[in-house]
Amino acid sequence: MKLLQCYIDDIIKTALMEDINYIDAAADNLIPPEHKSSAYYIAKDTGVVCGIEIAKRVFELSGGDVDFRILMNDGTKVQKGDIIAELDGSTLTLLKGERTALNILQHMSGIATATNKCVELVSGTAAAVTDTRKTLPGLRALQKYAVTVGGGKNHRYNLSDAAMLKDNHIDAYGGITAAVAELRKKIGHTVKIEVEVRTLDELKEALENKVEIIMLDNMSCDEMKKAVEITNGSALLEASGNITAENIRSVAETGVNIISLGALTHSVKCFDISMRIKKK
Amino acid sequence: MKLLQCYIDDIIKTALMEDINYIDAAADNLIPPEHKSSAYYIAKDTGVVCGIEIAKRVFELSGGDVDFRILMNDGTKVQKGDIIAELDGSTLTLLKGERTALNILQHMSGIATATNKCVELVSGTAAAVTDTRKTLPGLRALQKYAVTVGGGKNHRYNLSDAAMLKDNHIDAYGGITAAVAELRKKIGHTVKIEVEVRTLDELKEALENKVEIIMLDNMSCDEMKKAVEITNGSALLEASGNITAENIRSVAETGVNIISLGALTHSVKCFDISMRIKKK
Amino acid sequence: MKLLQCYIDDIIKTALMEDINYIDAAADNLIPPEHKSSAYYIAKDTGVVCGIEIAKRVFELSGGDVDFRILMNDGTKVQKGDIIAELDGSTLTLLKGERTALNILQHMSGIATATNKCVELVSGTAAAVTDTRKTLPGLRALQKYAVTVGGGKNHRYNLSDAAMLKDNHIDAYGGITAAVAELRKKIGHTVKIEVEVRTLDELKEALENKVEIIMLDNMSCDEMKKAVEITNGSALLEASGNITAENIRSVAETGVNIISLGALTHSVKCFDISMRIKKK
Amino acid sequence: MKLLQCYIDDIIKTALMEDINYIDAAADNLIPPEHKSSAYYIAKDTGVVCGIEIAKRVFELSGGDVDFRILMNDGTKVQKGDIIAELDGSTLTLLKGERTALNILQHMSGIATATNKCVELVSGTAAAVTDTRKTLPGLRALQKYAVTVGGGKNHRYNLSDAAMLKDNHIDAYGGITAAVAELRKKIGHTVKIEVEVRTLDELKEALENKVEIIMLDNMSCDEMKKAVEITNGSALLEASGNITAENIRSVAETGVNIISLGALTHSVKCFDISMRIKKK
Amino acid sequence: MKLLQCYIDDIIKTALMEDINYIDAAADNLIPPEHKSSAYYIAKDTGVVCGIEIAKRVFELSGGDVDFRILMNDGTKVQKGDIIAELDGSTLTLLKGERTALNILQHMSGIATATNKCVELVSGTAAAVTDTRKTLPGLRALQKYAVTVGGGKNHRYNLSDAAMLKDNHIDAYGGITAAVAELRKKIGHTVKIEVEVRTLDELKEALENKVEIIMLDNMSCDEMKKAVEITNGSALLEASGNITAENIRSVAETGVNIISLGALTHSVKCFDISMRIKKK
Amino acid sequence: MKLLQCYIDDIIKTALMEDINYIDAAADNLIPPEHKSSAYYIAKDTGVVCGIEIAKRVFELSGGDVDFRILMNDGTKVQKGDIIAELDGSTLTLLKGERTALNILQHMSGIATATNKCVELVSGTAAAVTDTRKTLPGLRALQKYAVTVGGGKNHRYNLSDAAMLKDNHIDAYGGITAAVAELRKKIGHTVKIEVEVRTLDELKEALENKVEIIMLDNMSCDEMKKAVEITNGSALLEASGNITAENIRSVAETGVNIISLGALTHSVKCFDISMRIKKK
Repeated sequence: MKLLQCYIDDIIKTALMEDINYIDAAADNLIPPEHKSSAYYIAKDTGVVCGIEIAKRVFELSGGDVDFRILMNDGTKVQKGDIIAELDGSTLTLLKGERTALNILQHMSGIATATNKCVELVSGTAAAVTDTRKTLPGLRALQKYAVTVGGGKNHRYNLSDAAMLKDNHIDAYGGITAAVAELRKKIGHTVKIEVEVRTLDELKEALENKVEIIMLDNMSCDEMKKAVEITNGSALLEASGNITAENIRSVAETGVNIISLGALTHSVKCFDISMRIKKK
Repeated sequence: MKLLQCYIDDIIKTALMEDINYIDAAADNLIPPEHKSSAYYIAKDTGVVCGIEIAKRVFELSGGDVDFRILMNDGTKVQKGDIIAELDGSTLTLLKGERTALNILQHMSGIATATNKCVELVSGTAAAVTDTRKTLPGLRALQKYAVTVGGGKNHRYNLSDAAMLKDNHIDAYGGITAAVAELRKKIGHTVKIEVEVRTLDELKEALENKVEIIMLDNMSCDEMKKAVEITNGSALLEASGNITAENIRSVAETGVNIISLGALTHSVKCFDISMRIKKK
Repeated sequence: MKLLQCYIDDIIKTALMEDINYIDAAADNLIPPEHKSSAYYIAKDTGVVCGIEIAKRVFELSGGDVDFRILMNDGTKVQKGDIIAELDGSTLTLLKGERTALNILQHMSGIATATNKCVELVSGTAAAVTDTRKTLPGLRALQKYAVTVGGGKNHRYNLSDAAMLKDNHIDAYGGITAAVAELRKKIGHTVKIEVEVRTLDELKEALENKVEIIMLDNMSCDEMKKAVEITNGSALLEASGNITAENIRSVAETGVNIISLGALTHSVKCFDISMRIKKK
Repeated sequence: MKLLQCYIDDIIKTALMEDINYIDAAADNLIPPEHKSSAYYIAKDTGVVCGIEIAKRVFELSGGDVDFRILMNDGTKVQKGDIIAELDGSTLTLLKGERTALNILQHMSGIATATNKCVELVSGTAAAVTDTRKTLPGLRALQKYAVTVGGGKNHRYNLSDAAMLKDNHIDAYGGITAAVAELRKKIGHTVKIEVEVRTLDELKEALENKVEIIMLDNMSCDEMKKAVEITNGSALLEASGNITAENIRSVAETGVNIISLGALTHSVKCFDISMRIKKK
Repeated sequence: MKLLQCYIDDIIKTALMEDINYIDAAADNLIPPEHKSSAYYIAKDTGVVCGIEIAKRVFELSGGDVDFRILMNDGTKVQKGDIIAELDGSTLTLLKGERTALNILQHMSGIATATNKCVELVSGTAAAVTDTRKTLPGLRALQKYAVTVGGGKNHRYNLSDAAMLKDNHIDAYGGITAAVAELRKKIGHTVKIEVEVRTLDELKEALENKVEIIMLDNMSCDEMKKAVEITNGSALLEASGNITAENIRSVAETGVNIISLGALTHSVKCFDISMRIKKK
Repeated sequence: MKLLQCYIDDIIKTALMEDINYIDAAADNLIPPEHKSSAYYIAKDTGVVCGIEIAKRVFELSGGDVDFRILMNDGTKVQKGDIIAELDGSTLTLLKGERTALNILQHMSGIATATNKCVELVSGTAAAVTDTRKTLPGLRALQKYAVTVGGGKNHRYNLSDAAMLKDNHIDAYGGITAAVAELRKKIGHTVKIEVEVRTLDELKEALENKVEIIMLDNMSCDEMKKAVEITNGSALLEASGNITAENIRSVAETGVNIISLGALTHSVKCFDISMRIKKK
């Protein structure tokens, strides 16, 4: 698990407290602590598994005494009907952790699946698919990790680790050249500068200032092709704005280096996975 | 604001720490603290606003010194181009709070909008549209509140406040009758019992035990109609499983009392709202 | 343990930080880490044990290396002199965890014991003994769990999971009928409505509105008997206000369904248990 | 308010989250935000008010817009029927904060009242009444503060700030003399040593070691008188164990300096205060 | 204040709880709440002020009712005897907040002062002075901010926002070329790669791989001069290891771009500032 | 480990979140989870080890699967080149925990080393070396523990556990005698009173009031000698203010009982320890 255990545990504890709060009125009153069951996770669709170790951890924190065997690790492409994991142990724990584990697993797998679809659509081009800062509160690391599991790359994690100049910053400073110069005086040497441009003239100004990355904001594919020619490899070009499964291939074929999609994290369709308890 | 301020503030602080972490490398290095701007929130689509007071609060916690005037309160249906709020004040605060505020507002408005669409589809029938426990970690209260803003109702908040008997509970106890009897001995008088049934025979057994709510799990509309007849008002009937915008009207017309949809909270399409800073 | 481990652990950690803060000035400076002792918990009175697994957990979090053998589980009625648990291991851990473990165990056992006394007093009647929301800050789950261990039932856990209409709500809405009607439009289908009434006329109005539960506020036993007759099983009746060990049997014999007592949690007499370290 | 605001606020937020969790199903659905009410706090018994500023703060954190006028400050002795505070403002806030505020106020006032009774019983003697470490998890500061409001004094706050040698420590070190000597090498100069003794011989050994405080554990009054004579002012003597309202005067008259009572905080009878909303 | 208020407040609350815990045994027992005093902050040495707004905030959180007038903002160079701020108001608040405010202010000013000394020593060269990740737990943002106030720049904030390849990474991957290639496949486009080199051969290999930054680990000034020549502006060169006030000028004159010093944050000499309460 | 595990774990988690935040961009992308390494901690200077168990714990919380063998426990004096610990296991964990573990270990060892130097300088005199409340936010327990490991003693932990009267308290109360008398009425019997004096007349007044400890504020050695004579063992005398390695011996030889140094915790020079990964 790449993410820190203490970060994961805090999210799980919060979710368990939300979902149980006091006791499980049905399970805690009906199921004897020593009752055992066997269960499994089954994919209901085609997609990419993500978050399976977190799902496993949920059962450790919701009562324990469950043997959770991962059959499909993060990143595995599954088909409808594939068994993702097998669980044996305390029925009480299985019932108390079930919803919390699935809520996280389905959300993360949904992101990985959608990302993977985009990655495949641009296959063979130079374009990388990335996320944005359009994430849900408290879930950024989960979501960004899921993007990488789906084959995408991460855009900057937060406002500290890269400096993106948008028109508001630029206007407040009297133009790209002045703003970039001022910024260079202030930021550390590990922080890249990205400038958002709306026209090819702005692009040229950005290039003259040797900024590392240039975002082409809502440009047409024709404009983007011209931008690629002008830039000629001297900066990374990022396409952004209104990119969908329908047009992503065309965007990628313009030659841009990065295609960023807010929808990967702000409009997630969960990937359908069921937990089934075996009848005895 | 119905939700507790301390709950809201914790979510906002978590989101701001995720998004800023240390400093805003662009804004904090370029924008003078005394610089002022005017901005507005504009709807990019047709939908229902939700979370506007939380968006306002974000700016108080990300630097303050912003006058945030709400033009469209939670629950207002907006059209593309409607101005939802006007903001005047510190440019630094506007830029540092922008993404966090929009991430929350767009997610909550997305839920309210999707819920509202379902509510309108069943208009005129007896069916209420409700959410489920399929929510995102840490965001349950935000999401459930958004469902009510869209015109839906809330299903149980957590495992403590209603007891739902699923087949696993029932199997472990030797049938509906035995499980309900045992549960009645244990739960408090404010806790309703809901039983999940898969057949009309199970329905009849549940009715004989006078449970308050019965969930019809993945039944066809024809079966549900028979269930409604058999029940004849002696319990609340909840339709659940694979309900979409396409079939929700047919389901409602069977006469069930509640239609619950996990997708309202587990597969949210964000509602598109932009924050635009006015050029001077 | 029905309660979530993460909830329990947070309470224990808070208590340990309160009680130790930095170091144990006596034990940490005198007792060598390898020093071992044997100890036991002994009941000093007749009562019901509650919280024994939490006491055990305290020693895991205050240093570990203690074998804690539970002899009397939660719910066991003990007599003066009964040995409740045996502890062997690190003297340092035993001394550092002693007070925190006993403070929790004695409080919870005090609640279970007092509840059990009430439950026995109403034995043979139809009345259930319940708690209220009159709990101590941060301790509601511990306290409500202890009530069930003593044989009582839980009233609603919080303001979200059942709607109780008191005179203030009713006045603000122009009467019971109007308030109940409005509430039914808003609340979810799992939320029961309870109405507090002060007269038999109010009772009748509540019954006409088919509310699930009616609280008879500070009524005499004679009035309650009439209320039981009028209601005739069509709603649950709750007696509340000034109920003590002296009058609880008379109240129960009126035929009410629920008797709620704030004193179970707001005025707890701790149950006396000692930890004794064996002399060598 | 002597206690730190951030400590108080954390307790209140925890309590509000416990009591409301999501929304107030009755008030949030029925009471319009602009609805106003007047209310007051009335004493139902004779006692000492404690926690009134915390009660006031509850309403600021549960919605605000309430004018809370304190008529009786902490430490005031009230009679049945006395008005302790007047509240005017948002009905919603009044209803949502009511239970949380009273739960804290009644508990703290209960402690102050019981302490005050003991203090009056020993009036005219040299004995101070103190608390112990037998407090409830998370509430130590609230409880210890309430003891001082009732006229008592605080024993040590935690295991760090004074070193108490009990028989277990002493046995592990081969006697009082050896244990005190070792401790003196380790502890800081601000930490007093208290030794628990069971016999007059142990008392003499403690005195020879010039310890600052000696606890007379479960001694009879006759023994304590002898202990006072022997000590002759060269150390503070603390009486502890099985002290009640019935025998506290006799204990005080032995001449001991301190009488510590666990019951002040581990077995609190809440002081009855009602919040009444005025009819319009 | 560039840093997030919620981050700052958490640090202050933690510090106040550490320093007060329950009450201020002297001030809370002696100083009447209405007692007022005037005080001022005075520099005891020559240095750079940093953290003054945080010091101000401490008094708002430790009781309030203090007018704190900042005379010297963050970044101001002060001489011994300069008045940095004036404080008027509640004596209780002044005494309870005094130590916490000074502890933070002196630490941050110590960092700014030491940084500034280094910055002045390299004045006129191309070298920027930066911090490292050698910070104290929980205080990284405070410390890194203080470095910028002293005129330094920040190295990467954490392990996420830049990828530094040290010999261990490189060995595990079979050389710089292989490791950089693999890394480029994985990291996002905003993340710079820095490679640590120990020899000029390694430098050349890093340059061939076009990494953005190269750290010259413990090289002599002569080696660094050669490294500057070889690099000829095609990457940023960072000098690191055993750099002190004595040798920093020589290092800077080699032509390196960045000089990083762990001592700026891991070995901080506090800057001496006193708070003096005026005699009346 | 004397300090509470939950306190230590919170500090470590905070530090790991600061240092990693999301993922380790280099290690998580390059090092396979199953890759193993061997490493060791080596002292780069002469000093006292402190915090080694905390360093060990860091690796358990940053990924685990590391065998951490402590060769030199807290308190051991090490020479340059001594091996302090050996580590074998997951390369990923070693790299992710490395910086956090060293930051804590070097800081605590720095404090222990500096304290030890002072303790040795006063060897043979009656003076104990103590810390002050001049600690860094959130780190007081770590720092005070390190002082004891270095052979020093702890001054009071916080404002609650001892009452120090400074001139501001005294002025507000009209003199030492009045202030001490008032304080004695309020504080508990375990709280010592320390009075800060600036002249021998103030010392005499403090002695007349039989206070337990007297701080001689910035007195010359001659004055301190006179103070020792006058006091003649009837109170503990603490020297404070501008004490350094140069003058501490002279101060100790005046006969004072305690010498307190803020620099032990407010101006810590970290003790240099390296973690070296063995080449294979």
